[in-house]
Amino acid sequence: MKITEYIAVLRENVEQARKQGKTIVLIPTMGFLHYGHLSMVEAAREQDKDHEKVYIVMSIFVNPLQFGPNEDYERYPRNLLRDTRLAQEAGVDLLFVPSVQEMYPEGESLTTVNVAKVSEELCGAHRPGHFQGVATVVNKLFNIVLPDVAYFGQKDYQQFIVIKQMVKDLNIPIKLALMPTVREADGLAMSSRNTYLNPEQRKQAPVLFKSLQSAAELIQTGERNPEVIRNAIEQRIRKESDGKIEYIEIRKAENLEKVERINDAVVIALAVHFGSTRLIDNIIVEV
Amino acid sequence: MKITEYIAVLRENVEQARKQGKTIVLIPTMGFLHYGHLSMVEAAREQDKDHEKVYIVMSIFVNPLQFGPNEDYERYPRNLLRDTRLAQEAGVDLLFVPSVQEMYPEGESLTTVNVAKVSEELCGAHRPGHFQGVATVVNKLFNIVLPDVAYFGQKDYQQFIVIKQMVKDLNIPIKLALMPTVREADGLAMSSRNTYLNPEQRKQAPVLFKSLQSAAELIQTGERNPEVIRNAIEQRIRKESDGKIEYIEIRKAENLEKVERINDAVVIALAVHFGSTRLIDNIIVEV
Repeated sequence: MKITEYIAVLRENVEQARKQGKTIVLIPTMGFLHYGHLSMVEAAREQDKDHEKVYIVMSIFVNPLQFGPNEDYERYPRNLLRDTRLAQEAGVDLLFVPSVQEMYPEGESLTTVNVAKVSEELCGAHRPGHFQGVATVVNKLFNIVLPDVAYFGQKDYQQFIVIKQMVKDLNIPIKLALMPTVREADGLAMSSRNTYLNPEQRKQAPVLFKSLQSAAELIQTGERNPEVIRNAIEQRIRKESDGKIEYIEIRKAENLEKVERINDAVVIALAVHFGSTRLIDNIIVEV
Repeated sequence: MKITEYIAVLRENVEQARKQGKTIVLIPTMGFLHYGHLSMVEAAREQDKDHEKVYIVMSIFVNPLQFGPNEDYERYPRNLLRDTRLAQEAGVDLLFVPSVQEMYPEGESLTTVNVAKVSEELCGAHRPGHFQGVATVVNKLFNIVLPDVAYFGQKDYQQFIVIKQMVKDLNIPIKLALMPTVREADGLAMSSRNTYLNPEQRKQAPVLFKSLQSAAELIQTGERNPEVIRNAIEQRIRKESDGKIEYIEIRKAENLEKVERINDAVVIALAVHFGSTRLIDNIIVEV
């Protein structure tokens, strides 16, 4: 595995792999890797264990642009030494770890990419500017790496929808793959932010996925009213945890539009605060 | 010369040229071609008269996104038949003439690219949303064509600066070339909008460039106060025409920043209305 913090070095290496006819896969992350990230590497590596056809680029960059002024940019967990070992073991070919200076040489970026509507809902309503920061940095990473395909985890489902819309609207010649959320044994979605939880919060946090699973069952047994589903989730979380609910929403899976009745694939998405830690999760339900 | 309105067909042709090792040149236009456009084609063609090394893509697209609600989108002059002939004669390899439907299949684009600061000055201050529309459509064209180099005319100097900033900020792997403004014999900058002028307006319009030239001479003979320069231009235009001045600005050529004193290369840019026709022009002065 090669590792570089420089765009020019990355481009040289990717260009060489491209000339060898390899498919370039990009897996963008903020590091502090867990099996949610590594499972994506494994899925890509599975197609080509001999490193002959698929070239896997993982980026690790905690992007200041996507954090609000009162969010956890400074204390977001980082461990590059451990990440390097895990990425190599999982089969990454090139690890890209740019500095903030390398990504934003002028401090801030005058240019921003904004995706209206889908960025303004759910997490976007509570984290103004977040998805603009995400869209901008992902657009940059796409231009830097020029991958054939980019992998994103379902845990950040809205992020995927925002990027899917950006790729479509801007005619970006890249395929996107949505990879399943990886969970702990008790159902908690893996997240770098889980390390913030104290033991009691960690014990309560699986209620998020449990309540999403029950909601999915409710839909599968015939319930079509999103308000009923929403209330069931809310009551369960309130009863079984001290979590403070930020939002619970049932939306069209395709574009996050509101639904009056559940007639189509929906995503049930939620954000809940445990103390100062904000957790998100979601489930997609086909009907 | 091939001509297509479809992105997929364009991509196939460009991909083939790329595989032949050709350099891909993009010349984006809004059509109603004049020698300002054609001189750019000729400059690219000059490097490879046998169509062996340079593949010239010209796009013709009157982009609704960059026109304000009270601007001339509907009446902007169009003549595809004549354009096709002129493009072919000048040496274009592929003429891309997408419909609005092809470029914006969902009507509007949810995704927009915005370049702060440089978009807000000069023309941007008088045409809100204009440069966002320009940046967005040029970003799309870059992703569609994936050129090695894109040519832009100096007449739209601010547009060039906005795109240069976008390319830098978003790490777009494309070189930009700024091509000289082409002028009529009497100095009027060639523009598709010149056709709007009535004979009297047409007779007066060359005062714009004449006043810019005199201003450049003032600087070259030692004047360093931008306010003095500005006033000289304003007085001359008022005296020699019925044009209504929208703005006259002396800015740093590199980034359009305001200057207190002229110590560096500056651009003198102006916009003047003749009746309902808005003309722009500029001159770059090195000191």
